[in-house]
Amino acid sequence: MFTVIGERINTTLKKVKAAVTARDAEYIKYDVRKQTEAGAAYIDVNAGARIGHEVEDMTWLLEAVQQATNLPLCLDSPDPGVLEMAYGLVSKKPMINSISLEKDRFDPMIKYLQGKDCRILALCMDDSGMPKSANDIVSRAKVLVAELEKIGFARDDIFLDPLVQPQGVDKSNGTMAMSAVRRIMTEIEGVHTTGGLSNISFGLPQRRTINRCFLSMMIANGFDSAIMDPLDEVAMTQVITADMLAGNDDFCMRFIKAARAGVRDD
Amino acid sequence: MFTVIGERINTTLKKVKAAVTARDAEYIKYDVRKQTEAGAAYIDVNAGARIGHEVEDMTWLLEAVQQATNLPLCLDSPDPGVLEMAYGLVSKKPMINSISLEKDRFDPMIKYLQGKDCRILALCMDDSGMPKSANDIVSRAKVLVAELEKIGFARDDIFLDPLVQPQGVDKSNGTMAMSAVRRIMTEIEGVHTTGGLSNISFGLPQRRTINRCFLSMMIANGFDSAIMDPLDEVAMTQVITADMLAGNDDFCMRFIKAARAGVRDD
Repeated sequence: MFTVIGERINTTLKKVKAAVTARDAEYIKYDVRKQTEAGAAYIDVNAGARIGHEVEDMTWLLEAVQQATNLPLCLDSPDPGVLEMAYGLVSKKPMINSISLEKDRFDPMIKYLQGKDCRILALCMDDSGMPKSANDIVSRAKVLVAELEKIGFARDDIFLDPLVQPQGVDKSNGTMAMSAVRRIMTEIEGVHTTGGLSNISFGLPQRRTINRCFLSMMIANGFDSAIMDPLDEVAMTQVITADMLAGNDDFCMRFIKAARAGVRDD
Repeated sequence: MFTVIGERINTTLKKVKAAVTARDAEYIKYDVRKQTEAGAAYIDVNAGARIGHEVEDMTWLLEAVQQATNLPLCLDSPDPGVLEMAYGLVSKKPMINSISLEKDRFDPMIKYLQGKDCRILALCMDDSGMPKSANDIVSRAKVLVAELEKIGFARDDIFLDPLVQPQGVDKSNGTMAMSAVRRIMTEIEGVHTTGGLSNISFGLPQRRTINRCFLSMMIANGFDSAIMDPLDEVAMTQVITADMLAGNDDFCMRFIKAARAGVRDD
């Protein structure tokens, strides 16, 4: 089943930043309850926007979020110190967002991850920048998985982000991501693929139409998780429908249940 | 670029049958003009519904249709006699709909096709019935292509229909069609894949949502033609969007043009 990582608790979003600044726990809890009801599997928590306040903001957020949901959290910070602190405050095995092959991120993160009981979101990025081909993505994915396996991670705990780039910049960016996902899911059997997809439509009109279509095309290639807004009913309908068509919904029961509840796709 | 075969001129549709019976050429011509404007590449013409009248109905339809469009036609009949007559009446290289490996259809059709200058729609069906696996579909496709190549057809003139079956009947029917299309497009390089897709949603609610999603998932696997209603703006938007994301739209110009004209996706 498709793993939705709810992206809404992020202090780069104006309303969330204001709620965190004002310590408005009700705002946060209401949002988290809605994400939970909508079918999120993880709630991403990012407290990085108020420079100098990340530790206290993350601490406060983790308490508020966990009062509102039993879901595991996706701890989103580039700072191993913040992640170490956050790791001690969560009640369920979290996902750590994120590691990459950029030296400045890789070295501290791989050290931090030693011995942790968590899942890990790994970006197919290295010091040469964004990937330029499906081969780039797949070879980086293989290095990341090898390094994470070395320190004891199971493939089922690794979520690889192929880093989707805008179709308007290069017409092969969509197929690059799709074929990379297909190859990762077959050549590194047992891992997951995830990421935000909305970059694909950057600079183009009708972004929602493009994003929805691309999501189903990625799922057709084996993509089995996304960082997304679970309250976007159009996108969630696409996830449920595409996942059903990909053969992951016995007797189409989840789809039929959603349809009865009134799926939204307009 | 994706090849849309417009399916609306078919006497099994009540209004078309009435128009043909009444020799209402204006009705037919208006519909064909709309399909042409909407981006059809072929206009399918089927005159089979009025038993005993197929030759005269097809003759009359071909004249009306060709007065309304310069597009090539897809001649849709199981009867080689009707096709022979129709072939003599078309002004552009037509597509012939259809051949299959069912003995009763294969033998007369392969004889009919000898020496014809046409494209051909080939169904992955044989006397054992509907395909039960992607392997079934691909192996039938290979036999069809080999037989058609033997009598001089180029792969670019062959459109293979994988025969989509309802997802509600078996949860692997979607992936069976998708992986068959992917394999056909790589293992039989140069051919096309086509077909009607709406069977996928048979018996399920929210059929339009399913059909739209499946169309993009099929295109993500290389599907490059469909028999569909070009006046269904939702489906046409999906074709234009998915084809763009599949890398077949330079600088996204066709998509951007459609977006400016107001693509419909609700």
